[in-house]
Amino acid sequence: MTPVRPAGFIGHDRMSIPNQALHFEIECSIGRARLGRVTTRHGAYDTPAFMPVGTQGTIKGILPDHVRATGSQIILANTYHLMLRPGEKVVADLGDLHKFMSWDGPILTDSGGFQVFSLADINKIDDECVTFKSHIDGAVVRLTPRRSMEVQNALGADIIMAFDECPPSTAARDYQVQAVERTLRWAALSQAAHARANDQSLFAIVQGGLDPALRAHCATELVSMDFPGYAVGGLAVGEGFDAMLRVLDYTVPLLPADKPRYLMGVGFPRDIFHAVARGIDQFDCTIPTRNGRNAYAFTASGAIRLRNSKFTRDAGPIEEGCDCYACRNFSRGAIRHYFFASEMLGPILVSLHNMRFYQRLMADIRSALRDGSFESFRQSDPRRTIAGRSDVEVKTEGSESKSDA
Amino acid sequence: MTPVRPAGFIGHDRMSIPNQALHFEIECSIGRARLGRVTTRHGAYDTPAFMPVGTQGTIKGILPDHVRATGSQIILANTYHLMLRPGEKVVADLGDLHKFMSWDGPILTDSGGFQVFSLADINKIDDECVTFKSHIDGAVVRLTPRRSMEVQNALGADIIMAFDECPPSTAARDYQVQAVERTLRWAALSQAAHARANDQSLFAIVQGGLDPALRAHCATELVSMDFPGYAVGGLAVGEGFDAMLRVLDYTVPLLPADKPRYLMGVGFPRDIFHAVARGIDQFDCTIPTRNGRNAYAFTASGAIRLRNSKFTRDAGPIEEGCDCYACRNFSRGAIRHYFFASEMLGPILVSLHNMRFYQRLMADIRSALRDGSFESFRQSDPRRTIAGRSDVEVKTEGSESKSDA
Repeated sequence: MTPVRPAGFIGHDRMSIPNQALHFEIECSIGRARLGRVTTRHGAYDTPAFMPVGTQGTIKGILPDHVRATGSQIILANTYHLMLRPGEKVVADLGDLHKFMSWDGPILTDSGGFQVFSLADINKIDDECVTFKSHIDGAVVRLTPRRSMEVQNALGADIIMAFDECPPSTAARDYQVQAVERTLRWAALSQAAHARANDQSLFAIVQGGLDPALRAHCATELVSMDFPGYAVGGLAVGEGFDAMLRVLDYTVPLLPADKPRYLMGVGFPRDIFHAVARGIDQFDCTIPTRNGRNAYAFTASGAIRLRNSKFTRDAGPIEEGCDCYACRNFSRGAIRHYFFASEMLGPILVSLHNMRFYQRLMADIRSALRDGSFESFRQSDPRRTIAGRSDVEVKTEGSESKSDA
Repeated sequence: MTPVRPAGFIGHDRMSIPNQALHFEIECSIGRARLGRVTTRHGAYDTPAFMPVGTQGTIKGILPDHVRATGSQIILANTYHLMLRPGEKVVADLGDLHKFMSWDGPILTDSGGFQVFSLADINKIDDECVTFKSHIDGAVVRLTPRRSMEVQNALGADIIMAFDECPPSTAARDYQVQAVERTLRWAALSQAAHARANDQSLFAIVQGGLDPALRAHCATELVSMDFPGYAVGGLAVGEGFDAMLRVLDYTVPLLPADKPRYLMGVGFPRDIFHAVARGIDQFDCTIPTRNGRNAYAFTASGAIRLRNSKFTRDAGPIEEGCDCYACRNFSRGAIRHYFFASEMLGPILVSLHNMRFYQRLMADIRSALRDGSFESFRQSDPRRTIAGRSDVEVKTEGSESKSDA
């Protein structure tokens, strides 16, 4: 299939889009899949994009120059964690999140909603507010749409997320209905409370569990509120691969074609192939870094556990042909030793490799979209089948850790 | 005082010294202090030099490109640790220590002697051998001069150390005498067992505690054996600053002027100023990295503890004017947060800064030697007084950790 280029496409000129917090250009599309570029006040990122997760204001163990060298163009940080420690006012006093993290490219912060519902000890939820105990010191904290906006405005990320309610995938329909109503109400309150619309783009989050009608209702209502971008939330929380794809099948077509679509907390390479084909433009996930810290490395010919004794004398790189810093400089044997010796370089090097593995995958997907080969690429590339295994620690949405590294 | 330049000095031309494992040129000297350059098979380092410590085959948490960027030209690794894990044969099978650590510059390995005497559970010492239990798994291990050479030959560092006995500074004179005799005997056995003299330079270690006659005896005997370089050992083990300087005062003049002199396990900036003035050419110490991991940062105007609450909103760098990666990119406030959040970037960034602090000090010392201002420099530079404090965790010789990071 030949890529479809929109008429009047003139390339990526930041000067032509003054006074906008976000500009999204679609270069071409193949089926529902799109190749594009999102430009923010802190530069651009190519889509489909993968965002490494920097929960507490750092990609764990990786200095920003090395994050950049993996091909990462936009990173994610967690509002919930930064609000509790060091506090958004501290981050603001130190400049903003870009200066704090030493990342001058685009940043996205989530709303805190997912972490409140998954990590915190919740005292009470009502239509106005969630009250919970901090996982750090047990302090009682209230989070509302207004407060989430206040925190995200202070942090200063380029893309911020509306405060939503994210029920478990196993939740009863009554709760799903209630959660969608709250998510819609809170999206409107978030939109109203957002004080920096000229600098920061507020994305809304579609909830609704596995119910097509609920998803459609949520999507339609949110689209009518006219956000600059839309996320699909509440997936990769245990519903299974096929169920996730079905949700994308009926939800994504309801979202505006000219705005970025973000699938939150996803995922494995297999998930990314299928979600891109269904029109998703950006992803975040802790899988590459979290697994890297556990000595689990991704390669196109299968994932490997570097603690395995068969690598003791293996002088080869983690993955033959990989151009990452770890593969250019260190043997599997040395990296295995670092894990057994509890040296930081073990987690650092495998996190770096996995991050580069993901960014190479995204670059290859974009390349296949550009040259029209995406359909055959996604049906033949060996990475298309890489997914979770029982020996992989999987935590697909949210944050890098409940508390400490 | 004007620097004294040796006649016939023609600069640093590696091509003029074929087939030698080590070449030492003294560019000039001021009093006993010397400015020079040591060239090895893996490149050169300028002296006086400071060697960061990479105990288990990695400078803890710092990727080699960042180690290099601190100005470090030669690094140290510990024979004792690498022999026990992963084993020197594994390192050799993976190439050699340079490839293992991804460090193509000069490397020095110690002999294992100091660690055996300070870390291991020793079963028996006699004139032939030390038998001890591994700190990792309790396995009984024998170390002899021949075995130390075998391990160091397999690791492949550019400078290796003779196996010595290092008694506590409080040891009785009888033990000091015995230790010197063993050190001399073991130096001869090390020299005889060294199988790669064309690639690796074997330095001998002068012991003798605080006794001038014993030090003189040890130095004189070792010099008669004609090693390519000499170390002063058994210092910075609790004897105190003044006692250390007295040992240097009477020991260093007994060493050959045309060979590198290495003061093992030293030290604080104050120690380095005084030791350089007494003719020492190279140093190693865990102080910058170990203190960095504990949030303790060196600055010219005094050391700071970055966990202190006064840095919470401090947007400045660790040290104003420092050109290290941490100071160019991160605020004190962000680094403080990383320590409280148990993020690896805290230890990484302060280790990086401290390493650069030390390398800037060494570069400034060399510069003062070159332009003839060393005497006034060492009496006026604010760093000349920086030394241990009760709240600094000090471990001055040997290795970065007994076991794990």
